Amino acid sequence: MDIMQSALNKHYEWKGKIEIISRTPINDRDSLSHAYTPGVAQPCLEIKDNPDLSFDLTRRANLVAVITDGTAVLGLGDIGPRAAMPVMEGKCALFKEFADVDAFPICVNSKDVDEIVHTIEMIAYSFGGINLEDISAPRCFEIEKKLKEKLDIPVFHDDQHGTAIVASAAMMNAAKVAGKKISEMTLVINGAGAAGIAIAKQFISLGIGNIIMVDLAGIICDGDEFSNPSHYEIAKLTNKNHIRGTLADAMKGADAFIGVSKPNLVTDEMIKSMAEKPIIFAMANPTPEIMPDKALAAGAFIVGTGRSDFPNQINNVVAFPGIFKGALAVRASDINEEMKLAAAYAIAGTVPEDKLAPDNILPDSFDRAIPIAVAEAVAEAARKSGVARI
Amino acid sequence: MDIMQSALNKHYEWKGKIEIISRTPINDRDSLSHAYTPGVAQPCLEIKDNPDLSFDLTRRANLVAVITDGTAVLGLGDIGPRAAMPVMEGKCALFKEFADVDAFPICVNSKDVDEIVHTIEMIAYSFGGINLEDISAPRCFEIEKKLKEKLDIPVFHDDQHGTAIVASAAMMNAAKVAGKKISEMTLVINGAGAAGIAIAKQFISLGIGNIIMVDLAGIICDGDEFSNPSHYEIAKLTNKNHIRGTLADAMKGADAFIGVSKPNLVTDEMIKSMAEKPIIFAMANPTPEIMPDKALAAGAFIVGTGRSDFPNQINNVVAFPGIFKGALAVRASDINEEMKLAAAYAIAGTVPEDKLAPDNILPDSFDRAIPIAVAEAVAEAARKSGVARI
Repeated sequence: MDIMQSALNKHYEWKGKIEIISRTPINDRDSLSHAYTPGVAQPCLEIKDNPDLSFDLTRRANLVAVITDGTAVLGLGDIGPRAAMPVMEGKCALFKEFADVDAFPICVNSKDVDEIVHTIEMIAYSFGGINLEDISAPRCFEIEKKLKEKLDIPVFHDDQHGTAIVASAAMMNAAKVAGKKISEMTLVINGAGAAGIAIAKQFISLGIGNIIMVDLAGIICDGDEFSNPSHYEIAKLTNKNHIRGTLADAMKGADAFIGVSKPNLVTDEMIKSMAEKPIIFAMANPTPEIMPDKALAAGAFIVGTGRSDFPNQINNVVAFPGIFKGALAVRASDINEEMKLAAAYAIAGTVPEDKLAPDNILPDSFDRAIPIAVAEAVAEAARKSGVARI
Repeated sequence: MDIMQSALNKHYEWKGKIEIISRTPINDRDSLSHAYTPGVAQPCLEIKDNPDLSFDLTRRANLVAVITDGTAVLGLGDIGPRAAMPVMEGKCALFKEFADVDAFPICVNSKDVDEIVHTIEMIAYSFGGINLEDISAPRCFEIEKKLKEKLDIPVFHDDQHGTAIVASAAMMNAAKVAGKKISEMTLVINGAGAAGIAIAKQFISLGIGNIIMVDLAGIICDGDEFSNPSHYEIAKLTNKNHIRGTLADAMKGADAFIGVSKPNLVTDEMIKSMAEKPIIFAMANPTPEIMPDKALAAGAFIVGTGRSDFPNQINNVVAFPGIFKGALAVRASDINEEMKLAAAYAIAGTVPEDKLAPDNILPDSFDRAIPIAVAEAVAEAARKSGVARI
């Protein structure tokens, strides 16, 4: 039986991948009078007088909402809010399994930016953080930006920032193995959607030498006209030498490639045209921009993909559980650039120097030490950057 | 240490009364590929093609949202959405402990009817049912009515209907013990807010002889002017003899009294003016309309209150867990009058005839057979009334 059929069967068996339990038995008058009336009136009154106590007296301090509108689910596209729910439940299960963070899935039945923002704003007091998920670009940028302005709890679009953090962690280690300096590297990013733009910004924070963004229409260059409004901003931040052309033109002499685009767009010739010891992260799912064996045969020095059946899996699961755990631990009002960078360094740091190798630039996703290390680094960065509230 | 202080201490210890767990371990590539990518794509696609499968392939079939705006919390009034959360979490814990129904608390940061309705409508695909809680009248009527029209899942305002169902179950047994027929009884209801009006409607469904509603302004009589618009409707349905006057006037010759109002409004003289074997449900919390010993001394035959420290506690916890369990079991599109009546009969029926006595008209709240009996009766009523979908 193939994985798709067996996964479907499992979903019928599970009847939901998450469950809400009571943290205290309620089986006699005494327990009822403490957990419910009349005793519950006291924590209510305490919170009424000091609303921040909602973090101490309810589950809010450990609770993240995983919210989607179902418009960009996996590679399936706009399948609607109900159909997105198995992914959201899976994400919530991962939060709990990897970092003991409680997460609850919410699918919003709208595609309108302001309607989605308003709905989330209306329910935000119920949560300690908001993880946006599988929302299509460019709406996801606007939704995240508006929510960050309106809410005083962390808002984080994992498809953007989680992907960027893990890709940059992988690149730090890959550069180390290849003997390259990030500050001197030229990186080609193919795919200028939500993930591609977030990756570019993350590498700019890391001090990368140069980035060349490539989209369906070719290399993104300042001064050109774009259909996607977010490309005007990214054009100003990338492509220092103002080159124009195709992906093949971009690849010439580049040190590294990150693909968040479509299968099989990268050719042997492109790899051969790159600088020495090229680093290739072909992250299109499930079929990468170039298959690892093909890339290696063409001269790639290090290859990473999103897949678990090849070395160097670039998987968000090493990032988001620990990031929220750290942000919640210090009741951060935001997940800012400093915290994202700290997460990337922490993930990279979980692979011991003497274990780093072309086929081992990332830790095992299931190593439960990762979310702990990430959470500590993120909490520390939150404190230093002034967004921690405890 | 008093109960309020010890309950507060417990809340600091608990750090939330609910928790979200994963129903399946995710600790290796195989489990990850079934619960998350790539396998999760298959249940997504199945739901995309048949949205009703969201009930089979996610937790939706067993999941209720407990939603408040924080405007009428316990007897505390409008304490705001965050301060209401300990009550909502307690309610969710009760759903799980009493009926194994998963429930998740959501506080909405608005007091505007349409904004609240719209917010709930936007997130409703995430749930199998909506339990409204602690929303002030008359907004609660409008919110429930509009949601019932818009949503195809059950919507139930527990402060109205849960209270009405338990009060009517108690009255059925009390009438039996007192040798009265519901169809010949005159019932005085003091307090014409959300609970009082719902109780009146429930007793009309039960075929009560006559109801006299009393409010702060006195007896409600058709033809009068009212500040609360919902009183025009209830005036037409009650007070067959068009009497006018005070609570004392209403009580003369009445068979039963239900108070959902304020402490100590009922006097010895009022009880003495009632028909033989008067039945008194003094449900104001925590101090009833008349204390049980005082009522009994004045001639009351049966006295019930909301309190656990006197006999005949009239407590919603015997109703809502089983009602939602039954509605969810048959994927009901509504919780209708037939289902509410069935719940009331089922609750009344859990006290064996030979155990019925003036101080034993209701079952022990902690008897776990109650929610099972209620759920079966509610599911059956849903099927018979045509709102069951499986």
